[in-house]
Amino acid sequence: MKIASFDDHRIGLVDGDVVRDTTAALPAALDLMPQQRVNWLIENWDEVAPRLQEEASRAAARPLDRVRLLPANPAPPHVFAAPANYRKHIGELGSRVVTKQGRSAREQGFFLKAPGSLVGHRGTIGLPKGSTRRFDHESELAVVVGKGGRDIPRADAMAHVFGYACLIDATMRIEPGVAEEERSMRKSFAGFTPLGPWLVTADEVPEPQALSNRLWVNGELRQQADTSEMIVGIAELIELISSVLPIRPGDVIATGTPEGVGPFAPGDTLRIAIDGVGEMSVDVRENAAVSPRAY
Amino acid sequence: MKIASFDDHRIGLVDGDVVRDTTAALPAALDLMPQQRVNWLIENWDEVAPRLQEEASRAAARPLDRVRLLPANPAPPHVFAAPANYRKHIGELGSRVVTKQGRSAREQGFFLKAPGSLVGHRGTIGLPKGSTRRFDHESELAVVVGKGGRDIPRADAMAHVFGYACLIDATMRIEPGVAEEERSMRKSFAGFTPLGPWLVTADEVPEPQALSNRLWVNGELRQQADTSEMIVGIAELIELISSVLPIRPGDVIATGTPEGVGPFAPGDTLRIAIDGVGEMSVDVRENAAVSPRAY
Repeated sequence: MKIASFDDHRIGLVDGDVVRDTTAALPAALDLMPQQRVNWLIENWDEVAPRLQEEASRAAARPLDRVRLLPANPAPPHVFAAPANYRKHIGELGSRVVTKQGRSAREQGFFLKAPGSLVGHRGTIGLPKGSTRRFDHESELAVVVGKGGRDIPRADAMAHVFGYACLIDATMRIEPGVAEEERSMRKSFAGFTPLGPWLVTADEVPEPQALSNRLWVNGELRQQADTSEMIVGIAELIELISSVLPIRPGDVIATGTPEGVGPFAPGDTLRIAIDGVGEMSVDVRENAAVSPRAY
Repeated sequence: MKIASFDDHRIGLVDGDVVRDTTAALPAALDLMPQQRVNWLIENWDEVAPRLQEEASRAAARPLDRVRLLPANPAPPHVFAAPANYRKHIGELGSRVVTKQGRSAREQGFFLKAPGSLVGHRGTIGLPKGSTRRFDHESELAVVVGKGGRDIPRADAMAHVFGYACLIDATMRIEPGVAEEERSMRKSFAGFTPLGPWLVTADEVPEPQALSNRLWVNGELRQQADTSEMIVGIAELIELISSVLPIRPGDVIATGTPEGVGPFAPGDTLRIAIDGVGEMSVDVRENAAVSPRAY
């Protein structure tokens, strides 16, 4: 199934280029905290999945381009992320030296992004007004956690995956000696984590480590890799994160980016496509408001 | 008011050494997501506060030592944190050199801790089984956000504070050249963010920048400072964070720690006390389970 969050946190099933509103299959009590609907849905999936499909069978179809898509999960408990996680070049399968420090997530562990930085398909990455800093795109496969747990061995990890989405990890670069803010802040500006276009359940992605992952800036291909080239695979990332704290239903894991990380600027359109998962685009704009603090 | 989360996410008002269960003042619909009750309460405070007090007036008193206290907010949307944020020594009011890099939150910005690392009063900080790493305590005043917002100038910032709590920011230290994991991971082990003992509303803390903040390890005083010695004050932290992304009702801001950061080990008891806010203690234990990954 392809589960979309849209408009005022409605939940729908995507079928081709239409979405069918299935919000009525969820308890009305969730109206009090509509942004929690996806977390609840995932936590109660076995019970609610048949009701979703039944509701979809009688719901009217709405063209996807008439709704406003929200992040695939608008309020995940956590957004975990792996540092650059792909072998340097296609073909260099032996190399694990991909980051500046020559260390992968296996050594560096995960970092956190703010859930408040999420935005949906056709959303906006907002850059601080007047900034002269460099901002980069990173093209990533996002894993959404189904069953929570702690200390999950990698052999059992894939059973904890609910589904997948496309994710762009936008970053403000440091300027050594000039500006060296914390990584989790530089990656948490509002709009810096596009997640979408919707959530694809794991049964529709039988081989998540064999997907082409591509990102374009204004139609020009900038990043291209295959998830088979990940250094620390999905199962090991789940083992790593859950060795630190319990993962929870709805948590998002950004699995890291391949080579080709590069800058973007106001006016650009970023587009990401992952086989079997979907395609998402976002616009880059300079914020209208002047911030009380400059970047 | 002093608002406690306890047992299975019940909400109560604390009065001396008793708590009165006021959960019935909240909508029954929240039973579907009980860990969201504090966020909802904060977001709907003006409407619900009189009902809470009315409910407390007829509720039976339960001794606080008979309930299990949960984190002051069990599921904040974000846990933001300032790097070490106090002048080096009492009296050295001109010095801003407090961190290894000689930079404050003004230059480094904030980092994120995982909400999943929160634990309540009398809870446990769990260390990885068999670890030989060093683990440190940091004693901090936590600010809990009331009204959300973006680009909040510091002159308006205090109106966005809902209340306060004690916070211990526990950290696994890096070992340069050996193990240098991401800061947000090293600070996000389960139990590494004790937050409590409850949430004290801002009206009860008229001078949040003039509070004594102390931390003891096994009864020995290790950290002592006054919040007047913060380098980046609460209002400026709110300005800083909200210049990056919107802050949300229920968000927690750890305001940084004074000198005296030091190690703790299994068997230790940490106690923190902040004037007018409360006192909280937690035990340090080695995890019972062997993790699939060693630290």
